[in-house]
Amino acid sequence: MMDEARYGALREAVENHLLRVTREEWGGIPHPLRDAMAYSLLSGGKRLRPVLLLAAHELIAPWDGAALRFAGALEMIHTYSLIHDDLPAMDNDTLRRGKPTCHVVYGEGMAVLAGDGLLNLAMEEMLSSDHPGTLAAARAVAGAAGVRGMIAGQCLDLAHEGQEPSPELVSSIHRLKTACLLTAPMEAGLILAGAHEGQLAAGSAFGRLFGLAFQIRDDLLDRTGSEAALGKHTGKDTAEGKLTWPALYGEEQARADVARLTEEACGRLREAFGDKADFLCGIAQECVQRNH
Amino acid sequence: MMDEARYGALREAVENHLLRVTREEWGGIPHPLRDAMAYSLLSGGKRLRPVLLLAAHELIAPWDGAALRFAGALEMIHTYSLIHDDLPAMDNDTLRRGKPTCHVVYGEGMAVLAGDGLLNLAMEEMLSSDHPGTLAAARAVAGAAGVRGMIAGQCLDLAHEGQEPSPELVSSIHRLKTACLLTAPMEAGLILAGAHEGQLAAGSAFGRLFGLAFQIRDDLLDRTGSEAALGKHTGKDTAEGKLTWPALYGEEQARADVARLTEEACGRLREAFGDKADFLCGIAQECVQRNH
Repeated sequence: MMDEARYGALREAVENHLLRVTREEWGGIPHPLRDAMAYSLLSGGKRLRPVLLLAAHELIAPWDGAALRFAGALEMIHTYSLIHDDLPAMDNDTLRRGKPTCHVVYGEGMAVLAGDGLLNLAMEEMLSSDHPGTLAAARAVAGAAGVRGMIAGQCLDLAHEGQEPSPELVSSIHRLKTACLLTAPMEAGLILAGAHEGQLAAGSAFGRLFGLAFQIRDDLLDRTGSEAALGKHTGKDTAEGKLTWPALYGEEQARADVARLTEEACGRLREAFGDKADFLCGIAQECVQRNH
Repeated sequence: MMDEARYGALREAVENHLLRVTREEWGGIPHPLRDAMAYSLLSGGKRLRPVLLLAAHELIAPWDGAALRFAGALEMIHTYSLIHDDLPAMDNDTLRRGKPTCHVVYGEGMAVLAGDGLLNLAMEEMLSSDHPGTLAAARAVAGAAGVRGMIAGQCLDLAHEGQEPSPELVSSIHRLKTACLLTAPMEAGLILAGAHEGQLAAGSAFGRLFGLAFQIRDDLLDRTGSEAALGKHTGKDTAEGKLTWPALYGEEQARADVARLTEEACGRLREAFGDKADFLCGIAQECVQRNH
């Protein structure tokens, strides 16, 4: 069982931070660009990545302003990746979180710039603090988001669309495209909190295993979920011959893998943090059972 | 007169660094993405921004490995901005440095990712060093490249295409779109070299003034230069109703402004660095007299 109240409090802290930043600090950004960035960044969502970062920090110590900046940066990176992923030249999606996608509203050119802008701003946000862990935490996030991480996953996804899926390829895509950006907040949160190496390794393993389970669950929802509940078009993966876990192993095996990976993820975190891991394990379990 | 041999030596150092990085450190990047990034990054060019960074460093002390990483990062940011700028949704250019643009060769989706990848990698490259000036120099570059800098300029350019140009708007676009990314290497190079505040302000002013002169010269070349010499399509700005300095003030005034701004830039640098400024002033003068 997830601690809903605690999740809600962290999510609200993130939401308020993002609202405050966009209202008070985005004055210098010219208009159509600022609007396009805010439209996508403030369109709701679970705020999972920033919540993970704050919760990871809380495994060791209460989070502070620097952690909140990093949390916001993670959401900016996630949002930019969705904006670019939705472009006609990529997944060509017109609906996201129940709203028309960024390029539908602001045009393709402005959507490209809004994505670039959010990635660049995420870096600026991370570098803005003088926290002793800033450099190491920013390295972890930039590495996970980059061409050996999330962007590599998007490349493989795009380059191999419609091909016969191999287990290695599907696993690579899932690990890179999704798990990297769920591992990064764990690492950054722990680094900022002053974690030692063993704690960092456990948090990292949790993110990696949970991230893989999360993406398999996503694949399953694309097959079986309703568009109304998900707020995006479903069945697209199958129609476009995308490489998915259920396509490779069948739905039953995919469900079993989700459960096994999540349990393994939680086991690793409990080994290092005991009962303090309960909240994050609850989040993982809730996420992989979600219907939206 | 520019010291051609010295420029050539710095340019070669940058070129060798980029070649070495792409060959020895890009193994973990999946293939079509790596190819698309390398195609654009290694397609020649003057390497002006990285050379400025190294030359700025030399105003105070010989540059080192950290400065070279930053120099490479500047070229990656410049290259990513060109890749995204050339996309059909933006400037829709098919020719750059005499070669087909990235999206023509690798497809639009891969070009979007190659641009994202180069921006992200530039951040990783800057953060990779443990130099005491890393954080401050990376902040200067990220700020100049971002939504209050270069990306803001691209936004204004895109949003106001075909409109009646006002002096303020054209000046803003030039300052943001071009001058920011010529100011950043001056600042980063000086910060890494341990410059004091007055030196930093002089370098920054040089970059800003020279950057504006550079963009006006670019506008003039688009009107009068040959495609063979420039390696890109010319006359596009006029055809598309882009806001340019000559369109606003006429060619004669534009030429006079280029000369005045360059002289002012060099004056600021000489005030702070005396004869040591000669090399950078020579670069500025050469650039604003260039035919390609």
